[in-house]
Amino acid sequence: TATHASLYSAVFAFYESLGLGRSPLDDTWRTCTKSDSSGTSSGGESSKESSRSSTPVLDADRMDRLRDKMRRRTESGDHWFSLEFFPPRTASGAVNLVSRFDRMGSGGPLFIDITWHPAGDPGSDKETSSMMIASTAVNYCGLESILHLTCCNQTKDKITGYLSKAKRLGLKNIMALRGDPVGADWEEEEGGFNYATDLVKHIRCEFDDYFDICVAGYPTGHPEAESYDEDLRHLKEKVDAGADFIITQLFFRADTFLKFVRDCRAIGITCPILPGIFPIQGYQSLKQLVKLSKLEVPEEIMRVIEPIKDNDAAIRNYGIEQTVGMCRVLLESGNVPGLHFYTLNREVATMEVLRQLGLWIEDPRRPLPWAVSAHPKRKVEDVRPIFWASRPKSYIYRTQDWDDFPNGRWGNSSSPAFGELNDYYLFYLKSKSSKDALLKMWGEELTSEQSVYEVFTSYIKAQPNCAGHKVMCLPWNDEPLAPETNLLMDELDKVNRRGVLTINSQPTINGKPSSDPIVGWGPPGGYVFQKAYLEFFTSSENITVLLKVLKKYEPRVNYHIVNVHGQNTTNAHDMQPNAVTWGIFPGREIVQPTVVDPVSFMYWKDEAFALWIEQWAKLYEDESPSRMIIKYIHDNYFLVNLVDNDFPLDNCLWQVIDDMFELLDNPPEEQPTEQPAEQPAEESPVEDQPPK
Amino acid sequence: TATHASLYSAVFAFYESLGLGRSPLDDTWRTCTKSDSSGTSSGGESSKESSRSSTPVLDADRMDRLRDKMRRRTESGDHWFSLEFFPPRTASGAVNLVSRFDRMGSGGPLFIDITWHPAGDPGSDKETSSMMIASTAVNYCGLESILHLTCCNQTKDKITGYLSKAKRLGLKNIMALRGDPVGADWEEEEGGFNYATDLVKHIRCEFDDYFDICVAGYPTGHPEAESYDEDLRHLKEKVDAGADFIITQLFFRADTFLKFVRDCRAIGITCPILPGIFPIQGYQSLKQLVKLSKLEVPEEIMRVIEPIKDNDAAIRNYGIEQTVGMCRVLLESGNVPGLHFYTLNREVATMEVLRQLGLWIEDPRRPLPWAVSAHPKRKVEDVRPIFWASRPKSYIYRTQDWDDFPNGRWGNSSSPAFGELNDYYLFYLKSKSSKDALLKMWGEELTSEQSVYEVFTSYIKAQPNCAGHKVMCLPWNDEPLAPETNLLMDELDKVNRRGVLTINSQPTINGKPSSDPIVGWGPPGGYVFQKAYLEFFTSSENITVLLKVLKKYEPRVNYHIVNVHGQNTTNAHDMQPNAVTWGIFPGREIVQPTVVDPVSFMYWKDEAFALWIEQWAKLYEDESPSRMIIKYIHDNYFLVNLVDNDFPLDNCLWQVIDDMFELLDNPPEEQPTEQPAEQPAEESPVEDQPPK
Repeated sequence: TATHASLYSAVFAFYESLGLGRSPLDDTWRTCTKSDSSGTSSGGESSKESSRSSTPVLDADRMDRLRDKMRRRTESGDHWFSLEFFPPRTASGAVNLVSRFDRMGSGGPLFIDITWHPAGDPGSDKETSSMMIASTAVNYCGLESILHLTCCNQTKDKITGYLSKAKRLGLKNIMALRGDPVGADWEEEEGGFNYATDLVKHIRCEFDDYFDICVAGYPTGHPEAESYDEDLRHLKEKVDAGADFIITQLFFRADTFLKFVRDCRAIGITCPILPGIFPIQGYQSLKQLVKLSKLEVPEEIMRVIEPIKDNDAAIRNYGIEQTVGMCRVLLESGNVPGLHFYTLNREVATMEVLRQLGLWIEDPRRPLPWAVSAHPKRKVEDVRPIFWASRPKSYIYRTQDWDDFPNGRWGNSSSPAFGELNDYYLFYLKSKSSKDALLKMWGEELTSEQSVYEVFTSYIKAQPNCAGHKVMCLPWNDEPLAPETNLLMDELDKVNRRGVLTINSQPTINGKPSSDPIVGWGPPGGYVFQKAYLEFFTSSENITVLLKVLKKYEPRVNYHIVNVHGQNTTNAHDMQPNAVTWGIFPGREIVQPTVVDPVSFMYWKDEAFALWIEQWAKLYEDESPSRMIIKYIHDNYFLVNLVDNDFPLDNCLWQVIDDMFELLDNPPEEQPTEQPAEQPAEESPVEDQPPK
Repeated sequence: TATHASLYSAVFAFYESLGLGRSPLDDTWRTCTKSDSSGTSSGGESSKESSRSSTPVLDADRMDRLRDKMRRRTESGDHWFSLEFFPPRTASGAVNLVSRFDRMGSGGPLFIDITWHPAGDPGSDKETSSMMIASTAVNYCGLESILHLTCCNQTKDKITGYLSKAKRLGLKNIMALRGDPVGADWEEEEGGFNYATDLVKHIRCEFDDYFDICVAGYPTGHPEAESYDEDLRHLKEKVDAGADFIITQLFFRADTFLKFVRDCRAIGITCPILPGIFPIQGYQSLKQLVKLSKLEVPEEIMRVIEPIKDNDAAIRNYGIEQTVGMCRVLLESGNVPGLHFYTLNREVATMEVLRQLGLWIEDPRRPLPWAVSAHPKRKVEDVRPIFWASRPKSYIYRTQDWDDFPNGRWGNSSSPAFGELNDYYLFYLKSKSSKDALLKMWGEELTSEQSVYEVFTSYIKAQPNCAGHKVMCLPWNDEPLAPETNLLMDELDKVNRRGVLTINSQPTINGKPSSDPIVGWGPPGGYVFQKAYLEFFTSSENITVLLKVLKKYEPRVNYHIVNVHGQNTTNAHDMQPNAVTWGIFPGREIVQPTVVDPVSFMYWKDEAFALWIEQWAKLYEDESPSRMIIKYIHDNYFLVNLVDNDFPLDNCLWQVIDDMFELLDNPPEEQPTEQPAEQPAEESPVEDQPPK
């Protein structure tokens, strides 16, 4: 019964015309060949709930699989949205796309999906592959993600290999598509993958219930289908084979979709059906899409567009308006629980539509103060060291091989080792700025340690440096300062000027509502707390004085002081971790998502010092004065972290630094015999001499 | 070389004369026969630190073994004391001794020790056995304990059996003694246990380093030793064989002990040597002791005692004074890190001496709000359900078979099962009051539910009931109200009068210092918090109204309401536990020692309802009206717990109860169709009708 030789569907073809990925649309209306594979279930991972104290807690939503999240949201009547992206062509495109994931992820999509791009080695480890992009979205951006997969012209082994790899990487959702046969004279292959239904069956057969499966639907019927009704029957076959929900091809009128849903329901398709929304973003792209998809643009749209076809802004504005109008009708119909957007990897139009619809979450509720990874293995994770607060992707990378993740409590020192420090060149950890941009921000030429201090103060104040360039990032912070840190700006500015080079800090919080827009996180109705934290590099001369000052703050202030060689001074009790962020919520156990852990600080130290060299010194020529200055700081400065344990009182850490400056400015007349500044040893009693 | 046939040492013999246990004193000056056993190490338990999040935390002291605690305390210069007890003769003696452990344990002994009583089946499961008493002290009273063990006339298998059982029960310390040969014509046995040294070697051989081992020392030499010097050499052999420290026979002059320590040090004995302190408590007992021990009472003591020999109080006062004086000399010598008291199972004299010396800790720092068990398996335990707060021994009993204990977090519902509810007859859980005393307190004859309410109010106010008897305990509380609960007395009184029969409660605490004498716990410098908690029985009529009232308090108040049949109504989110007590400490992770856990509440419910019958109804004759009243309450009342999640605000739980009374007093005019009071179902929407 199969007669369609080569089937290009609209958005897919459009992606191809952009030279990029794959669409979610596919031909799938054939009855399937029964899968031969014997049912080797490999869904063991979800049954791995082991000991009583390792089970969580925070967020049922975080534990649910996609189809359950969808059901929950549908039941609550809470509309959602999702976003489709295609894989980039270039490495720098990949870096940019990951940034886009972070930005668009912050608006609260229920999931994103990544198209499969057969021409782009989609299952490889290349940074532009569909597999790697989806993995990055899940693991490093914390986004629930669907990986597209096409099966046409593929062996079962190859497909199983892709699926196994996807599972290994933490991917839990597959969009099962047939894809495009190679060559025009394609014929059905006995026992092979001829239709998406075959792929759905194969996934269920080989991986049992591990994956959530999505399939494509055509509101106007597939352009090459024998009939609309036959197309619907094939869709029902895909669902019956085990698909969990449907995403549709794009359409231009709400009625088209609503009729489609009615028709689906009428033949017994009961799963969620998500409308594929395509905001018109330009005249040429629309023409091309229409040609490829064989969709008809309704006359009322063409009438508006034709007269303004050379005005890109006007067309985009119209597209937004038209999309918003259509989406309102869809949502108000009561038959549309959520909207799926074909973003074409662009942000503006989709975000604007979502904003106007009130679906874009400006202040997303954070389940934890840091962005959680969506890898199933990390579902229980709810404690991290504070050190990687500005480099969460590096933390995820360096802990990816852990067998289990701390939850409830960080635990003791015998923690699994952190991964090697070779991550600077991973695309998802690369600086978004070019070498040129970095040189402009951090100085074409450094003349002294002081000129390094100025880079830090420019960054903190978000002001131009002496060469007139705003400093938007530092090696330890790839983003401008967090709003929370702005609370500390004046103090930070003051101490950085004098060579206390801060790279991480948080203010004291004594029981703010969990809904607080700046410091809030976790479920509503709770209270969040923090101990003040400050982490900085500073010279060994400062350290000598700082150690004297810290004696006065025992046991209120905990400190760790270490140099690149690992010389370490601390007053941590039995090397125990110190919880510095925690929350109390109605009907829950305590959550303490950030700790200062003495053991992992030693791993962080390696990374923090290496960033001086890898990201900053290497901008300059070997042996150049600029490079020597950074190298000198790397070799001689200490990395310090301070915690003020007395969270109900005002933060005393600024006073500690002030006392240090005061003692530096007014040294006591008699200098007692002292430990050499380079070697503050753990056991050495340092005299406590108050400043005069 | 062995010539001593039968060797009775003083305190041991004295115990025998009381018909009781054994002393720590033993003859041990013979060179030992080398143990033949091959070194089967069974000390694996201490190496069982598994996953990262299951490792603690709170209290290094709690993790240390006894010899390390001793070393820590010695190094800190912080003097300690320890207490010796002998096993009781009768079951009621055992109940009393356990109460004594709780009282004397609260003064902060470093350890207690239990003598071995060969005539009393010491290794059996009888409630009077040395083994059971030591096990109870460790597991149920949370006391670091040493079990004495004598080896004379025992086979190796028998001894190994005792030691294995001790280990299985969680005992970690053994006082290795020879004990008394049976019969007068004892001779050394080749390869057998001839001396304490043999036992020390055997323990080390069979159990490696699992046990801490203590041996006996004689400041004046053993009465039948060939010489003082030979006695010292035998002591050195015992230490060299693997003993960790020495406890001495009693003595009357500080100099005797101090010379003994010098002599020990001179021949290379370096381990701790603890002086055995015996406060003189009566003339006859002293005479008898002296006769048996062949010790000489110094003339200066006899001179004082002889004239007052018929005045027990005067002799005891003198004994206290004399002991305090001697102890002061010992402690000030700098050679005595701690004092070991032969209590003779009495409290007054020893406690008075300790108070005068300033060693008795009136307000012991509690590491957690509840008394921890000293079983090695439970070292990491730091979370418990609040329900057993007044029945901690029952909780320990019912969870004794758990493989691991919650720490950091209580975790999810799939918790290991609780043990069967058959513990009412265990001696360490028995009520301290006789049936007669209970009848006096709880009513010889009950006439109505109201008369039950009056028992509760009498208990809460610590006032006599209508028959003039103070109500000192209830089935759910074997002790008078905790000081903390006194904070709530007026409110408790008010609600109990109206049939809200409270059995557990705690007030809101929003960040009190951890040193607070009433609610404080944990390391210094921290802050403790509580959510208000209230648990009570009340009639099904009240429940119907209460459920309406609770609607107004969503989501602030979490509740669980259940009857004896298990009909259960709750608003707990996903059946998660709710942390109701937690503490924040300098340089530590968060500790949350008490939770309200929906799952274990169902186990507690069985116990709480059963106590009505087992402890109260059964006081009365079958079919008697009194018994029927209690039975009616058991069958028809509900058990309720309430948590006010909003800990920074004033406790609203009293308002909840007041609202319930208000609605009962002024029911709305129109009665909407209602759920039958007996069956508040989880899903039923109860109309929220404000009272008029």
